[in-house]
Amino acid sequence: MANDSQIVDVITSLYHIPLPEVMGDAKHGMHTHFDVPIVKVIVQDGRQGIGYTYTGGLGGRAIASLIEHDLRPFLLGQDASCVESLWDAMQWKIHYIGRGGLASFAISAVDIALWDLRAKKADEPLWKLLGGADNSVKAYAGAIDLNFPLEKLLQNNRTYLERGFRAVKIKLGQERLEEDIERIAAVRELIGPDVDLMVDANMKWSVATAITAAKRMKPYNVLWLEEPTIPEDYDGYLRISERGGIPIAAGENYRTIYEFACAMTRGKIDFPQPDASNIGGITGWLKVAHLAQTYNLPVCSHGMQELHVSLLSAMPNGAYLEVHSFPIDAYTTRPLVLQDGRAVAPNVTGTGVEFRWDLLEPFEQSR
Amino acid sequence: MANDSQIVDVITSLYHIPLPEVMGDAKHGMHTHFDVPIVKVIVQDGRQGIGYTYTGGLGGRAIASLIEHDLRPFLLGQDASCVESLWDAMQWKIHYIGRGGLASFAISAVDIALWDLRAKKADEPLWKLLGGADNSVKAYAGAIDLNFPLEKLLQNNRTYLERGFRAVKIKLGQERLEEDIERIAAVRELIGPDVDLMVDANMKWSVATAITAAKRMKPYNVLWLEEPTIPEDYDGYLRISERGGIPIAAGENYRTIYEFACAMTRGKIDFPQPDASNIGGITGWLKVAHLAQTYNLPVCSHGMQELHVSLLSAMPNGAYLEVHSFPIDAYTTRPLVLQDGRAVAPNVTGTGVEFRWDLLEPFEQSR
Ligand SMILES: [Mg+2]
Ligand SMILES: [Mg+2]
Repeated sequence: MANDSQIVDVITSLYHIPLPEVMGDAKHGMHTHFDVPIVKVIVQDGRQGIGYTYTGGLGGRAIASLIEHDLRPFLLGQDASCVESLWDAMQWKIHYIGRGGLASFAISAVDIALWDLRAKKADEPLWKLLGGADNSVKAYAGAIDLNFPLEKLLQNNRTYLERGFRAVKIKLGQERLEEDIERIAAVRELIGPDVDLMVDANMKWSVATAITAAKRMKPYNVLWLEEPTIPEDYDGYLRISERGGIPIAAGENYRTIYEFACAMTRGKIDFPQPDASNIGGITGWLKVAHLAQTYNLPVCSHGMQELHVSLLSAMPNGAYLEVHSFPIDAYTTRPLVLQDGRAVAPNVTGTGVEFRWDLLEPFEQSR
Repeated sequence: MANDSQIVDVITSLYHIPLPEVMGDAKHGMHTHFDVPIVKVIVQDGRQGIGYTYTGGLGGRAIASLIEHDLRPFLLGQDASCVESLWDAMQWKIHYIGRGGLASFAISAVDIALWDLRAKKADEPLWKLLGGADNSVKAYAGAIDLNFPLEKLLQNNRTYLERGFRAVKIKLGQERLEEDIERIAAVRELIGPDVDLMVDANMKWSVATAITAAKRMKPYNVLWLEEPTIPEDYDGYLRISERGGIPIAAGENYRTIYEFACAMTRGKIDFPQPDASNIGGITGWLKVAHLAQTYNLPVCSHGMQELHVSLLSAMPNGAYLEVHSFPIDAYTTRPLVLQDGRAVAPNVTGTGVEFRWDLLEPFEQSR
């Protein structure tokens, strides 16, 4: 039979999008833009799949270059239907400059486009195609607010509650630990006892400081402490949760399934947070989600809420969707839908992420 | 005092250089080119440092893009003398798209340029500046010969012996394991009992196959088995050396010091092989070399012999230099110097790697 799914073109574009306000955290410094490389995979019968990835404003050109110069020549002529096999083949094709890191962003963008094609061909929304445990998932507002003065921090969280969020996360890593604790106390006071509160140190601390911080925040019923120190210190993560008496979340800086395996088995993290934009797309994200289930863990997400809402809803162990602060909703046809504190997955075929090209266009980078 | 070492420019160029013949190994497929991104760091007083990295023909453009668009803006105005501090700052600057992977190649190129500047300012050759344990190190010829028929394999190794090598490495990973063993036997027969023989499976095997293979090659006195399976399977590496009864080498696919720490502590590898072109330059390579000494291990190298000869010579635990098959010597002013099977470090200030720009120029890529 003729192969309608043969890849005939792979077209990459890059958008460098300004943020409405400067946002800071402990180790990225100040964010002023975010980068969105978008890839269109076109198959023989004319169908198109759209995939994409993100960065905090750096490296977008290098990612687009990898897709265009290194992945595209390999992908042309391949069968887009064999998604997982192509994922593996892409990993091996660029493994020497890969095995995680920046290459994972490039593979992610392509993989998401392949899943978009698969779901469209199957005529299913992603939340069903991936298992359909539910069509919604608990959501929290993930602020990038380390640089916000206290009053602005509180106002920001008030806005989240008004929008219907029942869980919020704030950044930690002030110069004085005491200030972090004061901010946690003030936010807990604002949101009351029934709203979930998470905190995120973005890798700033030593293990010792993290343990001290964890103990100091105990009165405020924090659901998890995210990335207290560098993610490679698996033994350190275990010490922090054991001695600090707090659940640990991590994942946005793991770029391979092997790193997640180490984090779950040696690091004993409580909330794995894979990000389909940098763990190898939906294929990579699913491998981590299944690994989490195997280890009796929930799975959460980082960033990319417009896609992760479908992934997390689908999984029996889907726990908490991060609604990230990058304003991607301004550039898609379907902004976040929140009902009773839960994010609802789009019910259209494909990934359900459709870009407003007219709004993106002013930010396209010539290359 | 005025800062003569302030960085005033960072200029990147990219060379895509054809190989004289197609060379194959188990998991990269066939090599037809290699990529050499070169970076020139210029400081206030006009001095220039030259750094560079390599790939097997893919990803050079993405690496050059990262240096040009993401590292350069950060480096301008920095003090080039504070090499290790800049290494750390570069890691954090691009950590979200980094933490190993392709970003390590970009950081490597810049770091090597900074060391070139440091050694020139100190008026020392690198082998002395880094400790000066010796000015030479044992060397072996690392062939990429999986696709060579047996007669060509033997002829190639004859050439190595004629050139003065007293150690050689061949590739494994034929369709039939028996053929690998026959090739090992034939090469051992050719080189005699006194020449060291290493073998390299380039990650092709399962752990079980690697153990079987290790046992089968026992009669031929193999010094090490390199990368028998994927490098992230630290526990697998340990099982292979324990059950197969063979020393294990690995390193060319680790891009962070954390991965090397896992390989040495959990994987119990015998011969760590950091590569300054992808482990974060000389700064990253030295951290791994010191880690190896701490764990009572020798340190070896992968690729980039024209630079590693100085690094390995300098170290008290420097063991074996791989003389790689990419013909970089055709493009530098000082091809490999072999004496009694040892490679001799250049005795000039700086890294001692000086490119023949006239010969490189035809292969420069416009970007
Ligand atoms: Mg975070
Ligand atoms: Mg090798």
